[in-house]
Amino acid sequence: MQIKLVATDVDGVWTDGGLYYDKDGNELKKFNVKDGAGVKLLKTAGIPVCVITAKNSPMVEKRAKELRVDYLYQGVEDKIRAISALVKMLNLSFEEIAYIGDDFNDVPLLRKAGCSATPADASQIIQQEADWVLTKKGGEGVFREFVEKLLIEMGVYNTVYEEMIKCHDEN
Amino acid sequence: MQIKLVATDVDGVWTDGGLYYDKDGNELKKFNVKDGAGVKLLKTAGIPVCVITAKNSPMVEKRAKELRVDYLYQGVEDKIRAISALVKMLNLSFEEIAYIGDDFNDVPLLRKAGCSATPADASQIIQQEADWVLTKKGGEGVFREFVEKLLIEMGVYNTVYEEMIKCHDEN
Amino acid sequence: MQIKLVATDVDGVWTDGGLYYDKDGNELKKFNVKDGAGVKLLKTAGIPVCVITAKNSPMVEKRAKELRVDYLYQGVEDKIRAISALVKMLNLSFEEIAYIGDDFNDVPLLRKAGCSATPADASQIIQQEADWVLTKKGGEGVFREFVEKLLIEMGVYNTVYEEMIKCHDEN
Amino acid sequence: MQIKLVATDVDGVWTDGGLYYDKDGNELKKFNVKDGAGVKLLKTAGIPVCVITAKNSPMVEKRAKELRVDYLYQGVEDKIRAISALVKMLNLSFEEIAYIGDDFNDVPLLRKAGCSATPADASQIIQQEADWVLTKKGGEGVFREFVEKLLIEMGVYNTVYEEMIKCHDEN
Repeated sequence: MQIKLVATDVDGVWTDGGLYYDKDGNELKKFNVKDGAGVKLLKTAGIPVCVITAKNSPMVEKRAKELRVDYLYQGVEDKIRAISALVKMLNLSFEEIAYIGDDFNDVPLLRKAGCSATPADASQIIQQEADWVLTKKGGEGVFREFVEKLLIEMGVYNTVYEEMIKCHDEN
Repeated sequence: MQIKLVATDVDGVWTDGGLYYDKDGNELKKFNVKDGAGVKLLKTAGIPVCVITAKNSPMVEKRAKELRVDYLYQGVEDKIRAISALVKMLNLSFEEIAYIGDDFNDVPLLRKAGCSATPADASQIIQQEADWVLTKKGGEGVFREFVEKLLIEMGVYNTVYEEMIKCHDEN
Repeated sequence: MQIKLVATDVDGVWTDGGLYYDKDGNELKKFNVKDGAGVKLLKTAGIPVCVITAKNSPMVEKRAKELRVDYLYQGVEDKIRAISALVKMLNLSFEEIAYIGDDFNDVPLLRKAGCSATPADASQIIQQEADWVLTKKGGEGVFREFVEKLLIEMGVYNTVYEEMIKCHDEN
Repeated sequence: MQIKLVATDVDGVWTDGGLYYDKDGNELKKFNVKDGAGVKLLKTAGIPVCVITAKNSPMVEKRAKELRVDYLYQGVEDKIRAISALVKMLNLSFEEIAYIGDDFNDVPLLRKAGCSATPADASQIIQQEADWVLTKKGGEGVFREFVEKLLIEMGVYNTVYEEMIKCHDEN
């Protein structure tokens, strides 16, 4: 397996799907520090990361920025079109991208990516569309589990791990 | 089974029953993006949705609006009376409605609806009042599980699913 | 068993022990609508409720008020002294009170109450001090589980249940 | 085992790794009252506590202060250097410190401490670096579980427990 880009959904993957609303219409999102470590694993491995979501929020923007995510697409109606354009721009094939998502609008990408996964709590019909059903649920660090599994499959995890232990910032 | 209206409780179904209070008396509610997909499944299937709750909050109003829920009843003391009026207005029978709820004030509707369900974490005595006890807890996307199970029973899930994959907004 | 007063701890019982802090030093607490139903069960059964906690917060005050809890003691260093005074005032014996708590400062009451319980996630050493270890964790509605078990043991649950189904407000 | 200092990570240990973001870039952290009891157990046993984290937040400062944590290090890039300095200052050896952490930047300390542990939900590769993998996940009171296990191993838990039951403040 030769993965050159990892793309991920947000709600239900980086979160447990939770939408916290207050009385004034404001929203909270709950990310997980473990997924931040997943992004760092990919950076250490030299693999760019793309965050792509149908929704639009300043929380996702902040989180993506602090993790120095390479590509952030918010408010995306048609994910496969956006990723197609990116794949073309980077001179990649769909076979070279890995994707994790958990719902209907992720299915076309789950089908087309070289390697695809869903969290353990994705709907059963969605799980059947992915190569891997991971052991963690959305928001529990499932993105990081995906990254670790990818790096293991690619045979580079041990090298990346030793590198990670030498660097010390945590987000 | 011929369901023409799906009605749902909020606290304990669309949420885990959690009431987040701050020091100023404000409240947060945590919804789940998966239940939003449940509403869209019903819209795709052409089945209207009714949200009915004894409490009253702007968070539920916002969530219902963004999902374009067809009927929203808040602050309802007597749920069966409210649903009776709706059933009459829509020229339906109780046999044609499906209902999910998790507590005492839901019991009359659980008993009377054509198809009824509770989340996995409803109190045992409440579970005994429903046709189905679902596998997910409140707030984990149990409403969407209910919808999927309904559509499967009605023999229309595969058609609706393929339709869903073609449309791409996520809430 | 003849219980005439039910007393309860807050953090770790009515909540999962979670203390949500923001950058300005404000705090959130997450209660559960199911425990509110537990209070109503007791009211329907004619048994007064006492909430007693070592901490002090406006969130607990708001929650206790909206549930019309009979006795609220916050900032209590010595719980057994406070409950002793209440027991005396109400002309009860400790045999007639039921108590649920989850930590060190609850142990004297767990030992002295006529019936005592801890949530499933209390520390093991604390669990050994209680008559019952319940199946739910703190914040999952364990107080309501406690109340239901008490009413069943007292042989009055079915009567109270039918009464509850007739009344329709949910908090 | 002779432990004279207990040090702990924050995110993923005192929390479930959750980073709650609002639209204005503010953050919430969710601590657990049970871990506060862990700090008190150590104080009762006369063992100082050090909180050490790569991140930097007023929430951790507030929590550490209210629990009267002895040493608080925030924004620490290199945890082993910081702890080395503390160990030296206190005239201890690494054999005499116990450490709990859950991620890459904790590994050097997990390897070097006299006794080390991770929460049940730490990544598998991190778990292999620790002496103990505890039963609780981060945010569920795993720090307190660690403390109890330490005190049991040191043969002082029963004494400390009886002492704790006599004192009555809860945080």
